[in-house]
Amino acid sequence: MRQSALFTKTRREAPADEVAKNAQLLVRAGYIHKEMAGVYSYLPLGLRTLNKIVQIIREEMNAIGGQELIMTALQDKDLWSRTDRWDDDKVDNWFKTSFKSGGETGLAITHEEPLTRIMTEHISSYRDLPVYAYQFQNKFRNELRAKSGIMRGKEFLMKDLYSFSKDDAEHKSFYDKARAAYLKIFERAGVGDQTYVTFASGGIFSEFSEEFQTVSEAGEDTIYVDEEKRIAINKEVCTDEALAKLGLEKEKLVEKKAIEAGNTFNLGTRFSEPLGLLYTDETGARKPVVMGSYGIGPTRLMGIIVEVLADEKGLVWPESIAPFAIHLVSLGKSGDDISRIADALYDDLVKAGVEVLYDDRDVRAGEKFAESDLLGIPKRIVVGKEAVETEIFEVVNRATGKVSKTPRAELFPSEGGPASGRV
Amino acid sequence: MRQSALFTKTRREAPADEVAKNAQLLVRAGYIHKEMAGVYSYLPLGLRTLNKIVQIIREEMNAIGGQELIMTALQDKDLWSRTDRWDDDKVDNWFKTSFKSGGETGLAITHEEPLTRIMTEHISSYRDLPVYAYQFQNKFRNELRAKSGIMRGKEFLMKDLYSFSKDDAEHKSFYDKARAAYLKIFERAGVGDQTYVTFASGGIFSEFSEEFQTVSEAGEDTIYVDEEKRIAINKEVCTDEALAKLGLEKEKLVEKKAIEAGNTFNLGTRFSEPLGLLYTDETGARKPVVMGSYGIGPTRLMGIIVEVLADEKGLVWPESIAPFAIHLVSLGKSGDDISRIADALYDDLVKAGVEVLYDDRDVRAGEKFAESDLLGIPKRIVVGKEAVETEIFEVVNRATGKVSKTPRAELFPSEGGPASGRV
Repeated sequence: MRQSALFTKTRREAPADEVAKNAQLLVRAGYIHKEMAGVYSYLPLGLRTLNKIVQIIREEMNAIGGQELIMTALQDKDLWSRTDRWDDDKVDNWFKTSFKSGGETGLAITHEEPLTRIMTEHISSYRDLPVYAYQFQNKFRNELRAKSGIMRGKEFLMKDLYSFSKDDAEHKSFYDKARAAYLKIFERAGVGDQTYVTFASGGIFSEFSEEFQTVSEAGEDTIYVDEEKRIAINKEVCTDEALAKLGLEKEKLVEKKAIEAGNTFNLGTRFSEPLGLLYTDETGARKPVVMGSYGIGPTRLMGIIVEVLADEKGLVWPESIAPFAIHLVSLGKSGDDISRIADALYDDLVKAGVEVLYDDRDVRAGEKFAESDLLGIPKRIVVGKEAVETEIFEVVNRATGKVSKTPRAELFPSEGGPASGRV
Repeated sequence: MRQSALFTKTRREAPADEVAKNAQLLVRAGYIHKEMAGVYSYLPLGLRTLNKIVQIIREEMNAIGGQELIMTALQDKDLWSRTDRWDDDKVDNWFKTSFKSGGETGLAITHEEPLTRIMTEHISSYRDLPVYAYQFQNKFRNELRAKSGIMRGKEFLMKDLYSFSKDDAEHKSFYDKARAAYLKIFERAGVGDQTYVTFASGGIFSEFSEEFQTVSEAGEDTIYVDEEKRIAINKEVCTDEALAKLGLEKEKLVEKKAIEAGNTFNLGTRFSEPLGLLYTDETGARKPVVMGSYGIGPTRLMGIIVEVLADEKGLVWPESIAPFAIHLVSLGKSGDDISRIADALYDDLVKAGVEVLYDDRDVRAGEKFAESDLLGIPKRIVVGKEAVETEIFEVVNRATGKVSKTPRAELFPSEGGPASGRV
């Protein structure tokens, strides 16, 4: 895309009321717009990035048998009353409103209840199990404070997968697959090294639940990491007894601040029993379905990636989720030789299937480079005088700052290979 | 996908409280789930179909220069007060709720206000214009009655594009492109023949607005169609004076019931003035931006397609938006020769990039065919004894009912061509 056509502009200053680094940078770079505290719109570059994260998660959910659906924001009070999660005494962050046709409704905080009810119409026998269903859906949480940018919104995108199994053994076997898929997602999204499976408090059906915690100074949680085993334990549950049970040794643990990037829950029959999601087993007996839930917030993950990878100059995206692979920066003025070389390279890269943001504007070089750093696209190709004379292009790696001189032909993806401009 | 793995089941009866044909069929076929009156979840087959519609619209919006973004459901009361669209006296279908942190908020009924505000941060000069931005976003409307299935929901998906232009001439030139893009969308979605540009009441800035009306007995509107010119006029504005202005002759008009499938509005400076979206023109003068809005509801369009194309046996999807191109129905039992032939054909079709729903279940033929008709996938390939003996397959066109005998090789897409099983 030509940057002259992109409607968003960057800005030098973050909004005064924005304290989170992720939101400050994303607003400055024109990726997001703050509507109200904890409520953000995603502008073209932000939506492109978010969609890449969504697609990685979708592929990994499909790979473990997930079937995608999409439920609603508006929720049925009667349904949530049956699981005792409607009253403000029980769940304190509902947004509630009323139908003009009569009755109360609320905005989905999560979706166990509606999906369990849907499944009562589709699951009746052991032959119908297991089922894995997931969605990308907005969740609404009426948070008192919202100071973490897109990491904790009042309205945010969530990928929530739910598993429906015959018994604990079948549940456990899928649970392990889901854990592996989650680790793969964080790896693919560029924060694999920083993310640890972390034991946390369990709930009704298991002593511990598992969170995925990404180490970051912006973290609200404290975890103790065993670097060797690549697992961690949340400070909240870190007792001598717990360590013994989990086979962790106190001396080997390192304290870190971390952000919860995902979580998995063993729900047991907490929802299937009150909502009547039963199946008939091989012997004809009626049994409640055993459930699990598995959450990753794509918007939160985008915020985490900013917190972990951005530097003092701006955003730094991993190739896998960057809005564009290449930032092509022309130092020419429209109509001159440099511009013509840059135009031709842009056209050829696009034809070769490379995603390119092309800074074709008449703006001075220093400003272009500062903006390019702020936008965080992984590779910058600079088209200056040298390129006109030699067909050698300067390629800058945004993450490392490393500069290389690359002949034109090598800027293109090799056959069957990924994009271009190796640094 | 193997139907044995698909979690949804079809049902013989529609829900008793569902009066709209589109919702009756979609619920019976397992495409959607009714959460509450006017509130529907989209199950895997429904979401696949909806996503195809979304993708067609996206391609056509990109082709006319649209830049995709996504705004929020939660809306800022102060912003909407500035355009005088917050009070219930002015807009009567808000869902309103409150922040625990203080203050009221509402669920987006439309998005002129927030997008205009966003643009005040990105548009300042004539050089920044024109801009075209669009999104696929849920809208919420607190309707008193909701009896039209997914054609009129309390929560529904909307594609809304907004144009920002220097003046009326620039606006008009884009408006014509948007109209053409809309006609292409209805064409590609399979209801082009039934859909007419229809003059309707205009609002502040133009005498008439244009709707896109799809002829259907389920329609809530009455329109008068000039078949030759392929335009229509809404009954609401059909006076002798209006006909004269539009160059339509009363005698040539045919009365039809129709459903509004899309609309376009000339917004003029209705939003840019109160919200301060001004630009500096070539002479240094500050002027308000001229806006337009262009809406198509993908969920509504999906409902319209059902109303227009479905028959007494069930859904009938055009190839362009069907959840799968082929319904492969095996009449074998697991392990027999027929099943083996069907398995191999399924694998080969999937490898060839064809989207196949494969009914591999041990269910009797009559039930499979009735279900296949209900699901509405454009082409059914039946694998029975004949296929085992001759490698000739029965292919049934869902829309026409036409049956043909097709050799195996011809079931595959020809090189560079579209899918298979020509009937």
